[in-house]
Amino acid sequence: MIYLDNAATTAPDKKALARAVQFAEENYLNPSALYGGEVSAMLKKARESLLSGIADPTRFSLVFTSGGTEADNQALITCGKRNVVISAGEHAAVYETGVSLKNGGVELRLAPIGADGRVDAEKLLSLVDEKTSVVSVVHVNNETGAVNDIFALARAVKKKNPRCVFHSDGVQAFGKLPVRLTPEIDLYSVSAHKIGGLKGVGALVKRKEFVLRPFLHGGGQEGNLRSGTENVLGILDFAFAAEEKFSSLQADLLRLQRERERLKTLLDKDLFVPLSPSDGSPYIFTVSARGLRGEILQRLAMERGVIVGTGSACSSKKPHSRVIEACGYGKDILDGVLRLSFSPHTTEEEISVAAQTLNACARELKSRIG
Amino acid sequence: MIYLDNAATTAPDKKALARAVQFAEENYLNPSALYGGEVSAMLKKARESLLSGIADPTRFSLVFTSGGTEADNQALITCGKRNVVISAGEHAAVYETGVSLKNGGVELRLAPIGADGRVDAEKLLSLVDEKTSVVSVVHVNNETGAVNDIFALARAVKKKNPRCVFHSDGVQAFGKLPVRLTPEIDLYSVSAHKIGGLKGVGALVKRKEFVLRPFLHGGGQEGNLRSGTENVLGILDFAFAAEEKFSSLQADLLRLQRERERLKTLLDKDLFVPLSPSDGSPYIFTVSARGLRGEILQRLAMERGVIVGTGSACSSKKPHSRVIEACGYGKDILDGVLRLSFSPHTTEEEISVAAQTLNACARELKSRIG
Repeated sequence: MIYLDNAATTAPDKKALARAVQFAEENYLNPSALYGGEVSAMLKKARESLLSGIADPTRFSLVFTSGGTEADNQALITCGKRNVVISAGEHAAVYETGVSLKNGGVELRLAPIGADGRVDAEKLLSLVDEKTSVVSVVHVNNETGAVNDIFALARAVKKKNPRCVFHSDGVQAFGKLPVRLTPEIDLYSVSAHKIGGLKGVGALVKRKEFVLRPFLHGGGQEGNLRSGTENVLGILDFAFAAEEKFSSLQADLLRLQRERERLKTLLDKDLFVPLSPSDGSPYIFTVSARGLRGEILQRLAMERGVIVGTGSACSSKKPHSRVIEACGYGKDILDGVLRLSFSPHTTEEEISVAAQTLNACARELKSRIG
Repeated sequence: MIYLDNAATTAPDKKALARAVQFAEENYLNPSALYGGEVSAMLKKARESLLSGIADPTRFSLVFTSGGTEADNQALITCGKRNVVISAGEHAAVYETGVSLKNGGVELRLAPIGADGRVDAEKLLSLVDEKTSVVSVVHVNNETGAVNDIFALARAVKKKNPRCVFHSDGVQAFGKLPVRLTPEIDLYSVSAHKIGGLKGVGALVKRKEFVLRPFLHGGGQEGNLRSGTENVLGILDFAFAAEEKFSSLQADLLRLQRERERLKTLLDKDLFVPLSPSDGSPYIFTVSARGLRGEILQRLAMERGVIVGTGSACSSKKPHSRVIEACGYGKDILDGVLRLSFSPHTTEEEISVAAQTLNACARELKSRIG
């Protein structure tokens, strides 16, 4: 089985999981109990390790959450009032939270994105005013791989309204691209299961001086910002998996950049239109089999051992991708969207076989429908 | 090491965890992806298995959450408006969420509890009026083990105000006491790590016809009631651990009832005052070493290999237990609170040794302070 839907989720890193399971079985004490010092110390180490991968730990801290979705929800729900500015390329966790805020009376302003999925910086800025409470822009667009320059955007937003919160969903960037958070980024969401960790774990990274409001109320864990007994196994596994990823981040990046280019040349240009920008994340390559149906192609490929995505798994219940639609494409492109996404474990041979398989499936489907 | 703080958290069931890890490693596909059918089917089975332990699955359904705290938060935050009635014996996850609602303009009404921690039913009912949006009463008081008759309470509440939502935090009852949810219970919170599952998993059980509002927004998982990629490993492990517990629930209950009675007779009556009611959950036995400091006694006992709690781990940062205070006790009792809580794995010998150790520690401490 060739698995090329790593932007939806990744196989758990076996070594990291074995280490985390062993620790959780031997040290099951409640980290918040008076006697739970050892567990609590391990969580602290995990926190520092994860944080140091993307930020200066003296200037940023980290709140563990149940995943990227919760992190995004906490950012938008606790900061959103008056008006909120997000891009049209946001993941559902930000977009739907924005819609929910809108239903609660907050004005939701959507900044348009270009054909490659990148936000229009000028138009985004024009939507920010003195009443804007929070701006949220995805770091790597999860459907096209386009990379937004969140650092420049955050600087410009803060210049226009210094009290406005800047949040970015970094789920597809963390552990994949070199990231160093700058002081203009207040909040940054990350997730474990996109980099070999477990589903159900994530974090909201925050600028230390930024005053975040609690989201889950209760026992006061996570510095009172996120109550609930800590997911010890998931958090340690997240840190172990991330260490692994950070140790070869640059090498993986360069190799996948080459593989993605090679995949682009291997896919039949008469069948597949690339939607991803060349300077996007090398972990994602989105195409459209113009005039064909992506989900049929997906099923055909799966029958031959190649798993690809049709867009965000999270929005798989809707007919077309909201984000690819916002890129400005028409029905013939929207119908045929396939997202191929990689992990450091994706091999050269897998890319070659996947390209052949997709070419063959698309040809057959095309000849079938006449 | 004798571990008697199972109401704070339990050791993960090794068999259940091994099964869940194996499944998660072999089937890591995203359950919400079009191709994730097998994982999605396993989640459905886990859902049905967990549900059937406490309710009629044709009348109730279940929303997986990141734990009991999130379930409690979802219940209170999405239902709370105008006025909310809770007992003074609630876990911090309900109590602090109530306080947060109060800060947002909702009237919070606290029903008093008796010396054993049980809510005063008559006074609770007198607080419910036509404007009450939700009533929340803990099923088993996590600090004293007192069992509230939530079924009678829910009936009476619905009689007075049929539109009022009835929620109960069932975290200390699920998998321990025989529970069968009645149609008057709208929402019921449960947690995995109190019964051999992992930290970071729980569920909000709901009456099928009850219209719950979404809490986390995003990809629309859990019937759009709780977005975020499902915590597959944690959920399966929860179901496996619960199956184990449900298979011997009645036998464990009877045995622990005897052990708890035995512990009561073994503890020196001149040193320890029992706070738990005799008809409470046999999984919890709370005492006070009157005139001594619970946390010092806890440390002394830990040095001799016996781990006990001093009250809810979740509220360990406060000087006294809010709940035991609400039971009406003074400082000499409040200072000395120790909670001993059991699991089906707690042995007869462990109970005997723990009692001897606690007696010895309390005697020493007493002689030391004169």
